[in-house]
Amino acid sequence: MTALPQGFRAAALAAGIKPSGKIDLTAVVSDSPCAWAFAGTRSAAAAACVGRARQLYAAGLPLRAVLVNAGNANAATGAGGAADDAEMGALLAQAVGTPPESVLTASTGVIGHRLPMAKVRSGVPKLAEHLQSAADLHAQAIMTTDTRPKTAERTLPGGQRLVGVAKGSGMIHPDMATMFSFVYSDAAVDQAALRAAFPGIVARTFNAVTVDGDTSTNDMTAALCNAQAGAADTAEFLQALEEVMRDLARQIARDGEGAGTLLTVRVTGAASEADALLAARTCAASPLLKSAVHGRDPNWGRVIMALGRSGARLNLDNLRVDVQGVPVFHAEPLTYDPGQVSAAMNAEEVVFDIDLAVGQAKGEAWGCDLSAEYVRINADYTT
Amino acid sequence: MTALPQGFRAAALAAGIKPSGKIDLTAVVSDSPCAWAFAGTRSAAAAACVGRARQLYAAGLPLRAVLVNAGNANAATGAGGAADDAEMGALLAQAVGTPPESVLTASTGVIGHRLPMAKVRSGVPKLAEHLQSAADLHAQAIMTTDTRPKTAERTLPGGQRLVGVAKGSGMIHPDMATMFSFVYSDAAVDQAALRAAFPGIVARTFNAVTVDGDTSTNDMTAALCNAQAGAADTAEFLQALEEVMRDLARQIARDGEGAGTLLTVRVTGAASEADALLAARTCAASPLLKSAVHGRDPNWGRVIMALGRSGARLNLDNLRVDVQGVPVFHAEPLTYDPGQVSAAMNAEEVVFDIDLAVGQAKGEAWGCDLSAEYVRINADYTT
Repeated sequence: MTALPQGFRAAALAAGIKPSGKIDLTAVVSDSPCAWAFAGTRSAAAAACVGRARQLYAAGLPLRAVLVNAGNANAATGAGGAADDAEMGALLAQAVGTPPESVLTASTGVIGHRLPMAKVRSGVPKLAEHLQSAADLHAQAIMTTDTRPKTAERTLPGGQRLVGVAKGSGMIHPDMATMFSFVYSDAAVDQAALRAAFPGIVARTFNAVTVDGDTSTNDMTAALCNAQAGAADTAEFLQALEEVMRDLARQIARDGEGAGTLLTVRVTGAASEADALLAARTCAASPLLKSAVHGRDPNWGRVIMALGRSGARLNLDNLRVDVQGVPVFHAEPLTYDPGQVSAAMNAEEVVFDIDLAVGQAKGEAWGCDLSAEYVRINADYTT
Repeated sequence: MTALPQGFRAAALAAGIKPSGKIDLTAVVSDSPCAWAFAGTRSAAAAACVGRARQLYAAGLPLRAVLVNAGNANAATGAGGAADDAEMGALLAQAVGTPPESVLTASTGVIGHRLPMAKVRSGVPKLAEHLQSAADLHAQAIMTTDTRPKTAERTLPGGQRLVGVAKGSGMIHPDMATMFSFVYSDAAVDQAALRAAFPGIVARTFNAVTVDGDTSTNDMTAALCNAQAGAADTAEFLQALEEVMRDLARQIARDGEGAGTLLTVRVTGAASEADALLAARTCAASPLLKSAVHGRDPNWGRVIMALGRSGARLNLDNLRVDVQGVPVFHAEPLTYDPGQVSAAMNAEEVVFDIDLAVGQAKGEAWGCDLSAEYVRINADYTT
């Protein structure tokens, strides 16, 4: 069991939004107002909840609660969908006695269907009656095609804690955030410093994850700090926050739809951090490289292909590629034992190390193998 | 049988480059010098042959021959690979009695292996001894994972002909050209007009195709005109050229690795042609939409998702989506019979019509469904 930080309580229940009858509605409520940071999808077709979150963020008021439903994304639902989203937030606000603009709403699931509001109106008030300190049901209730709940935690030297939850398995190629990650902390932190650091942390964690190159309409990540355990050193807090988000990001990649292998791409020698992340993520997103990882095939030519199309600066005349620690390319093909490398790839995590040979910057991205199971999962997700 | 235009002859043989023993070396030779246009991959890791082709193109001399091997891409092979490529061209030049810089070379296959030059030196001269007018073996010899050869032809009102061949099945997301298309014509055309029109034609044909989003290191397309059937009207010629290239582009999408369905995305109401093509191609490239097409699932929410991440301008408040002619979204979800649409998707070609509702420009892109077979093909392509 993962206990939430001090002053946070969670509840989850099956409201009937998922046809399967699994739990699909959940909230976390803080006893005190929270400083917060947020990032949402850059999609031009962003869902109602992302648009509302941006408004709350710009208004700058403290948060008191996060309310999430799974099974329905409330995306591409027009003005009616936006009204449903606002009503959902207001329902929890009323139930726990806080202003509506202190409740962050988030929806995930099938795109293009209106929320079943009768079920939402019945379910949300019940959440307020069942709040308790465990984070586990909260992590479980936000899942869609995920095979396991994703949580991560860190404790600062001063005793303050951070507990994060995340979901995401398909439609994963976040652009500013991933399909839901929420980090709760009882530390007191300076909101301006948190918000200033947040985009960089998101770039190095959730935005470095890819499952299928498909950026969701509902991607959202937020960190909430309710100050109940006192002030934390800002640098220590930000480092712990990045560790929690990195941990969750890797869990999302590892649990990619149909995936059995975590694909890690580490890039050095890049002209800039942005270039390193671009090169790493393009490799981790390549269907051909992902298929090769699935087949334990040391086909590093596909790394060269992906680097070539990534847009990152590279020097092919001094570029290096290692697969599972074995050098396979340095300016030209190297001699190695394919059977040995293939055997080394038969692991839970396959690592490609790449030196672009043009600068000093580095970056890392995570993906997963592409399996026939991915197709099976997505060929009939709605029907 | 497809006969080449007047004055062109082709040969093909099994040089032993493919382990399967299939034909893998082919040339087309023109009796007279050819005006030509060319486009090659934008990959920063472009193969030796693409680099050499760019030099020939810039030099502006007429072409006399095209020499292609399959089974080995001669990419990421360093300076030695570039020397192999130049030697390959010189071998054919010597055999047919033409300058080396009048021979376009092209390689396709596995990345990161040096060409087996003993086999190339033995095979290329034999090509010159077996030249004949049929294009079929030429189209067959350039195949890798293609399941069928791809040819297309048009005849102009003046009797001049255009015959095109293409190959490509995986690593298909061309950026300036696709993994090999060559169009041969006996028309006399103005080379400057041909070269000026070529980038636009490539953008609307091969660059509108996607199989897996992976841009190859070896993509190349060229049109050769040897003038043997006399002068053609430039506009008529360019229209026929675009039709041939569009026909070949659709054949490549239809023969995507593991694919059973041609996915056509037609976009109207875009702010520009570039935006229309970007939106259409992003949809055609989406693994989630491709999986839905495979499952005959009218999950149009994935169209909205793909449009949202495409970067194209759109107006969600007036956007329309039709699936196989059935309206499913107009500013908000429409009521339709999912079983009826799913049945209509059980076809050789599935068409999505999208109106972005922001302008007057239009564009079209082609892809294919994503099947478990794609993974099987690519999980063990080298090993």
